[in-house]
Amino acid sequence: MVKIALDAMGGDYAPQEIVAGGVMAVKELEVEVVLIGREDEIRKELENHDTSGFPLSVVHTDEVIEMTDHPATAAKTKKRSSMHVGMRLVKNGEADGFVTMGNSGGALATALFVLGRIPGVKRPALATIYPTIKGYTFLLDIGANADCKPEYLHQFAIMGNIYVRDVLGVKNPRVGIISNGEERGKGNKLVLDTVPLLESTPDLNFIGNVEGKDVARGVADVVVMDGFTGNVLLKGSEGIAWMLGKMIEQEVKKSPVAILGALLMKGAMKKVLARTDYKEYGGAPLLGVNGNVIVGHGRSNRIAVRNAIRVAKSMTERGVIESIGKHSGIIGRTKDEIDD
Amino acid sequence: MVKIALDAMGGDYAPQEIVAGGVMAVKELEVEVVLIGREDEIRKELENHDTSGFPLSVVHTDEVIEMTDHPATAAKTKKRSSMHVGMRLVKNGEADGFVTMGNSGGALATALFVLGRIPGVKRPALATIYPTIKGYTFLLDIGANADCKPEYLHQFAIMGNIYVRDVLGVKNPRVGIISNGEERGKGNKLVLDTVPLLESTPDLNFIGNVEGKDVARGVADVVVMDGFTGNVLLKGSEGIAWMLGKMIEQEVKKSPVAILGALLMKGAMKKVLARTDYKEYGGAPLLGVNGNVIVGHGRSNRIAVRNAIRVAKSMTERGVIESIGKHSGIIGRTKDEIDD
Repeated sequence: MVKIALDAMGGDYAPQEIVAGGVMAVKELEVEVVLIGREDEIRKELENHDTSGFPLSVVHTDEVIEMTDHPATAAKTKKRSSMHVGMRLVKNGEADGFVTMGNSGGALATALFVLGRIPGVKRPALATIYPTIKGYTFLLDIGANADCKPEYLHQFAIMGNIYVRDVLGVKNPRVGIISNGEERGKGNKLVLDTVPLLESTPDLNFIGNVEGKDVARGVADVVVMDGFTGNVLLKGSEGIAWMLGKMIEQEVKKSPVAILGALLMKGAMKKVLARTDYKEYGGAPLLGVNGNVIVGHGRSNRIAVRNAIRVAKSMTERGVIESIGKHSGIIGRTKDEIDD
Repeated sequence: MVKIALDAMGGDYAPQEIVAGGVMAVKELEVEVVLIGREDEIRKELENHDTSGFPLSVVHTDEVIEMTDHPATAAKTKKRSSMHVGMRLVKNGEADGFVTMGNSGGALATALFVLGRIPGVKRPALATIYPTIKGYTFLLDIGANADCKPEYLHQFAIMGNIYVRDVLGVKNPRVGIISNGEERGKGNKLVLDTVPLLESTPDLNFIGNVEGKDVARGVADVVVMDGFTGNVLLKGSEGIAWMLGKMIEQEVKKSPVAILGALLMKGAMKKVLARTDYKEYGGAPLLGVNGNVIVGHGRSNRIAVRNAIRVAKSMTERGVIESIGKHSGIIGRTKDEIDD
């Protein structure tokens, strides 16, 4: 049975929702879960659940990487953190994957420290699931690498392709690169230098440049970008969505008729929220680190935690790390070089 | 009286809405307007208006830079285009400013060709007015310069500061730089190298890094970025706003109750749209070119055209070009260098 280590201390609703999500997972997913964190707090939460007979265990540690911690510093100094302990289980083969809803930068830094990179991978990437009108798309890098080289973006595309194909089940994923214009030849130097690498990669369904406005239209299944651009795109989108919601709230409040209208629209609005909700997807992988690590949203509830565990299980079963490792021979090399 | 050359052929609703906007401007703004374009088409539109006694004239030219034209090529080859002709009027002192709703890349390329840069300015920038929960903020560059150097961003900040202070009337504008984290020290190499220049610029109210999610919160009045990031941020925001609107439409359609709710909310939603509407602001300047040039949205109606003319007039009256020229001595230099 696949065994997932779960960071019981990470996330806004830890340990309550994390423990509850872990319990859901063992009951529903045919998976073994190891809760990592302060044992007394975890045990107290477990009292609210009937877990007898389910493969659930606890590994105690008293340190936590907080959201306010500096990632690299925390990774180096907090060696008893729940992230360290959980990832060491993966490193030593005592767990197949690790799931956390904590500090994503801290998780990445700790993963690099404990697990290292998959041989051949130059830089790991932070990824996210981004809602579109058709479902979702997979974006990377969204913040791990503020400055990128073409080879990094090339690898992000290959890793994203494998993940989306094997874990999310998208056949022949459409892979694009974000740019300031959809025509070939549009882009900054990084994009212009990356496009030929993507075009000449065998078995990659590269569809070319993708404009910011077309991500939400669902034109691609995987979109690669440097981590600076990815962070700005993602947080800018969050900002606009927040603003529109706030403006609607402000304007509705001014009119009793509109308040009634809003009440009648509540069901429809809930469905819109559900379609843009991260909880369904549970979390996104740290792609390129030598172990299955899923980082979820800080605001994850038990359902998101359960789903993140499902994703980690699937990543294990589909052998994503092995596939990326196999492709490390062609990663960063063009078709001509491979044919040599 | 301030005299504005107006590109009658640029924009999705040209010449009808452009001519109508020009007519509104001469009637309402104490401004003289010169309509540039195919005279027969313009005269036909003018028949729908009573313009006798108002300072409105027509300069004929038969060429147009289309939205599909390649900017640099069009700027070089279409020398009888309405953009060329209008900007030559500015260059020769026959007009104080030029307004177009046409191809913004074409306008920038033509402006560089005809008007050149303000002495001392390294790169001109495309700017835009971006809606926020508090009103709006001024973003630049949004696409003119895909790759930037720190000196460019530094100049964008100084030019944006002058424009927002003198034309939009914001006292002591808060100037920020977009980054992947608000803490000092977060950023890509470009941001890290630009921040010290901004910090050491006298009379610049530099507030530091601004995250993508905080732009819409209205934390800054001016936000600078390279043109690649700006384009992705702007178009990504457009995409999300479109997606949310579309999702609401789709979900509402499924339920008669929600349809009724949407009808009752119509007034409130219209107010939200008005708050995010570009028409109020008319357009944004090409900052750094040696002449007052305002580029508006392709979908501009007559009101947006009128407002763009108002902005061009204000830019003239406030002497924005002269202010930027005066500051060209300190642009790109730090306080220490200036004190030398």
